[in-house]
Amino acid sequence: MSTPSALEELIEALRCLPGVGPKSAQRMAYHLLQRDQQGARRLARALEQAVQVLRHCRRCNAFSEQEVCERCASPRRDASLLCVLEMPADLNMMEQTHAYQGMYYVLMGHISPLDGIGPKELQLGRFLERACDGEVQEVILATNFTNEGEATAHYLGEMLRARGLRVSRIARGLPVGGEIEHTDAGTIAQALIERRPL
Amino acid sequence: MSTPSALEELIEALRCLPGVGPKSAQRMAYHLLQRDQQGARRLARALEQAVQVLRHCRRCNAFSEQEVCERCASPRRDASLLCVLEMPADLNMMEQTHAYQGMYYVLMGHISPLDGIGPKELQLGRFLERACDGEVQEVILATNFTNEGEATAHYLGEMLRARGLRVSRIARGLPVGGEIEHTDAGTIAQALIERRPL
Repeated sequence: MSTPSALEELIEALRCLPGVGPKSAQRMAYHLLQRDQQGARRLARALEQAVQVLRHCRRCNAFSEQEVCERCASPRRDASLLCVLEMPADLNMMEQTHAYQGMYYVLMGHISPLDGIGPKELQLGRFLERACDGEVQEVILATNFTNEGEATAHYLGEMLRARGLRVSRIARGLPVGGEIEHTDAGTIAQALIERRPL
Repeated sequence: MSTPSALEELIEALRCLPGVGPKSAQRMAYHLLQRDQQGARRLARALEQAVQVLRHCRRCNAFSEQEVCERCASPRRDASLLCVLEMPADLNMMEQTHAYQGMYYVLMGHISPLDGIGPKELQLGRFLERACDGEVQEVILATNFTNEGEATAHYLGEMLRARGLRVSRIARGLPVGGEIEHTDAGTIAQALIERRPL
């Protein structure tokens, strides 16, 4: 009743952030108003700006301020390799490895029939066009090893092989530094099945 | 290197939210850009608006759009009772009990020498002025039962008693529905010490 409406609206608006419920939203609002009004103004500007200038790169589908992002435009990257990822965060992790110099395509999701996300919703036609540009020799499927990620990889694999492209899947197994004792049985089983000759 | 700067700035700006580290900030930014651009715009507006219109109520120190908030201006509340709280969120919880009809004062923090927050930083002079308005008969200290909350209550208690005001502290004990078996020893000990005659 007597909570001011600008405060109520801010708390409500903060709830559009993923993982932020009513309690956290309230805590965030109070924090910003009490201790970081400058941060609040900066965040407001950054949101406006980001929504305005960011779009999807025409080549890799990741966020970019240009029609084709720097990475896709770079002549130094190997255009014969195309790595498919679910989300932009995955792309950041990939780049941090410094182990890959090919191109990327970000699906912005995965196939998930329960959530009503099928090939059409993922705009796989657009991806197919990218993969069949004539330069790509091999598509590396790097979706997650979750049910949805696996289903997506399976679907894409069938689709790409039907068009005569070479397709691979990133390896499953124990993490670097991983110990058998502390690894789940499913991972150990997969690491056995996919063992490599030395 | 090739992450777009509007995106970097948004991720950095989101980190002003309490409890949001680099990973969450990235996840939030991608979520807003990919799935909720409308939410992002709404949040930007709400932040601007809140920072602009909200200030501290001259009477209770909570956030308000007016100089004196509706609650403090209400003639239906008992002006002889003044409940002291640490944060606005505590006030919301108090109001949800529907068990209190007196006035409030929100300290916007607690005494914490380690963080450099003393009586001066909490502007306790302002609080004292409010408590000594002549109408207040009893001050109920409802700061938290943490070290800082207890120290704050102790300090305020001394200060208020020296000015001849009646001072009380909210009760400690087991929560409603609480079971001895699942309550920590400190709480049980306090519940014993502060037992009430039936």
